[in-house]
Amino acid sequence: MKISIERATLLKAVGQAQSVVERRNTIPILANVLIEAEGNTVSFRATDLDIEVVDKAPAQVERAGATTVSAVMLHEIVRKLPDGALVQLTDDSAAGRLTVEAGRSTFSLATLPKEDFPVMASSEYTANFSAPAPVLRRLFDKSKFAISTEETRYYLNGVYMHVAQGEDGQVLRCVATDGHRLARIDAALPEGASAMPGVIVPRKTVGELRKLLDDDETQIAVSVSETKVRFAAPAITLTSKVIDGTFPDYSRVIPTGNTRRLEVDAQEFAKAVDRVATVSSERSRAVKLQLDEDRLVLSVNAPDAGAAEEELAVAYGDERLEIGFNAKYLLEIASQVDRENAVFLFNSSGDPTLMREGNDTSAVYVVMPMRV
Amino acid sequence: MKISIERATLLKAVGQAQSVVERRNTIPILANVLIEAEGNTVSFRATDLDIEVVDKAPAQVERAGATTVSAVMLHEIVRKLPDGALVQLTDDSAAGRLTVEAGRSTFSLATLPKEDFPVMASSEYTANFSAPAPVLRRLFDKSKFAISTEETRYYLNGVYMHVAQGEDGQVLRCVATDGHRLARIDAALPEGASAMPGVIVPRKTVGELRKLLDDDETQIAVSVSETKVRFAAPAITLTSKVIDGTFPDYSRVIPTGNTRRLEVDAQEFAKAVDRVATVSSERSRAVKLQLDEDRLVLSVNAPDAGAAEEELAVAYGDERLEIGFNAKYLLEIASQVDRENAVFLFNSSGDPTLMREGNDTSAVYVVMPMRV
Repeated sequence: MKISIERATLLKAVGQAQSVVERRNTIPILANVLIEAEGNTVSFRATDLDIEVVDKAPAQVERAGATTVSAVMLHEIVRKLPDGALVQLTDDSAAGRLTVEAGRSTFSLATLPKEDFPVMASSEYTANFSAPAPVLRRLFDKSKFAISTEETRYYLNGVYMHVAQGEDGQVLRCVATDGHRLARIDAALPEGASAMPGVIVPRKTVGELRKLLDDDETQIAVSVSETKVRFAAPAITLTSKVIDGTFPDYSRVIPTGNTRRLEVDAQEFAKAVDRVATVSSERSRAVKLQLDEDRLVLSVNAPDAGAAEEELAVAYGDERLEIGFNAKYLLEIASQVDRENAVFLFNSSGDPTLMREGNDTSAVYVVMPMRV
Repeated sequence: MKISIERATLLKAVGQAQSVVERRNTIPILANVLIEAEGNTVSFRATDLDIEVVDKAPAQVERAGATTVSAVMLHEIVRKLPDGALVQLTDDSAAGRLTVEAGRSTFSLATLPKEDFPVMASSEYTANFSAPAPVLRRLFDKSKFAISTEETRYYLNGVYMHVAQGEDGQVLRCVATDGHRLARIDAALPEGASAMPGVIVPRKTVGELRKLLDDDETQIAVSVSETKVRFAAPAITLTSKVIDGTFPDYSRVIPTGNTRRLEVDAQEFAKAVDRVATVSSERSRAVKLQLDEDRLVLSVNAPDAGAAEEELAVAYGDERLEIGFNAKYLLEIASQVDRENAVFLFNSSGDPTLMREGNDTSAVYVVMPMRV
C-alpha cells in the first residue's frame, strides 16, 4: 500500500475511527485501525467488537493494499503535523512497518497483519430507511440523558428506538429511562421504517452516532435488524450490535390523568433550581416545590449546611401542592426545553409528574417525585 | 453584621479567597471564609494554615460585624446569582446563620464563630519593597515549571526567591529545579530589596500569587522575613509561610564552559520534538538530537511502537554531536521562549546543557541529558 492524502482529510477520517477504539485493550489488534486503499479511496476501520466505524476519504492511491496500525498513535501524529501538509503512507509488510511521511518528518509505525483484524459480519437488515440528520439528532439528543448506568439493568443501558402508535398514526420513537425519569421522543415515521423491529441502541453507540449528525443537510441511511443497527452518512458508516434484552413496557409509566398544570419559563426555572440546590448535600439533592395560585416556591433544607428558598412567578391555577424532586433530574429535564415554556402536569405528591414543551406531545418527560 | 454588596464585586472577592481553601478539611473552620464588615469595606479571609488570603471590597455596611461561612458554598451561590444583582448578607449570630438575599432568592447558611477562625500571626518583615506585577509575573511564570514534586526533597518544592550577584550588579532572582532541569530568572533589584533573606516560596503560593499579577498596571508590595512572605495588591493580600529548608547551591549546576552553540526557532523546535515524541512509550520519553553543520535531526526509537525522525534547518557550526533528552523537559523549556530564537549551549553528550533566549542571560535554563 502506498497513498498520498491531505492532512486535514486524513485527520478527520482517522479521528472519527479512533474514537471507538477502547483505550485499554487486552487484544492488541483492537487498538489498531485497518487501513484499506483501493481505486482513489482509502478507508479506515476501527472496532471494539460491538461497534464498527468505517470512514472513507479520497486519496491518491499509488499502490493498493491494506494494513493495520495503532489508531491512537496514527491520530496523534496526524494531529501534530502542520496544517496543509501532504501525508504519504507506505506499507512495508515484510518489515511489519507503516511509514508516515510529511515534509521533513518520517514515522515508522509497527503494523499487525490485516488478516487478524476482526471485520464485523454483515447482516440481513429487516428494514432500511432514510432520515435527515436533524431528525435523528433530536430523537437521540433529547432522550440520552435518561439512559440508565446501572449495569445490572443492562436493557436500560441504551435508547429504545422503535415504531409506535402516536396520536396521529405511526411514529419513529426513542425512549430512555433509568427508573427515576423517562424521556419519550417522537418523529414522523420515515418511509420504509414501519417494518423495523424495536432495538435498544447502546449508550456508546448513541455517543458515536452523534458525530455523524452534525451537518443539517446530511441524509442518514438507517438499517435495522433484530441484532444490529447501521447508520450511514456519505463518508462514514457506523454499525453496532444492539442490546440483547427486552425494553420494559414504558407506556404504563407515563401518566395520562395528571391535571394540575404548571407553566414556567424553563430557563428561569432551571437557574432557580440550580441556585437553591447549592446548599443541599451531594447525596440527597431534594428540591421542594410549593405550588399556589400563580406562585412557585422552590426550597431546599439541609440541616447541616443551611437552607435556601426562591420564589418564581408562574402560571398555576389548581389547588395547593407540595412535591419534591431530585434537583439533578429537574435540571436535566428543564434543559431539554429549547423553544417554549415548560409545562408540568402533576397529580399528587406521590405520583409521577409529566413534563413537556408547551403543548407539544412529541417530546414528553416523566420524573418520579421524592419524599421531602 | 448586615451589608449590601454588588454581586460581581462579591464574586471576585470570594472567588479569590475560596481558592486557597483545601477541598478536604478535617478542621471544619478551615472550610470557611471569615467575613468582616466595618466602615464601608468588607473583607474575606481564607486560609489553609500555610497561606492566608485577605480580599477587601467596597460594600454598604449597615451593621458592622464578622462571621464565618463555607467558602465554597458562598462562592457557588454568588456565582449562580443573576448578573447585576445586589446581594444582602445578614448575620444572625444567635441562630448561627448567615442570610444571603438577592432578588427573590434567600439562603440561610450555617456559620461558625469568628473567634475560632485561625488568623495568621503578623510577622516582623526584614525587607519591604515594591515591584510591578509584570516583573513578578515573569520571575515566577518562567521558573515554576521546574519546581520539584518529590515530597522527600521538600526544599525543592518551591521557587527560591533571593538577591544574587548578576553580571551587572545585584538582581532579584527566582530559581527552581527538580534535579533534572533548572530555571534561573533575574530581574532588576527593586529598591529596598537588597536586605531580603532568600526564601523558598511554596508551589501552592506561587499558584495563588499568580492571580494578583494579571493586571499590568498594579504595583505589588512585597514583604519578606525568614519565615514568611507577603504579596499585597490594592484589594488583596496574600501571606504565606515559606519552606523551612536550605535551597541547594544551584550555581554549581549551571555550566559556564559550554561552547557548542545551536540556535533554533523555538516554536518549530518544540513542534518537532512533540511530533517525534509521539511514538515513544510514556515512560522513557527520550528524544535524540543529532547535530551537524546547520542541521539538526530529532529522532525517537521505540522498539515496540516504531520510530520517528525529523530534520530541522538550524544554525550550528561546531563538530558533530549526539545527545538525548527527556522530551517533556525539552518541550517545557522551549515553550518558555517567547521573543527570540532558542540558543542551546552544549558541552558533551553527558554534560548538562544550557538554554536561553538569544543572548539574554536574564533567563537561563539547564537540562540534564539522557542516555539514548
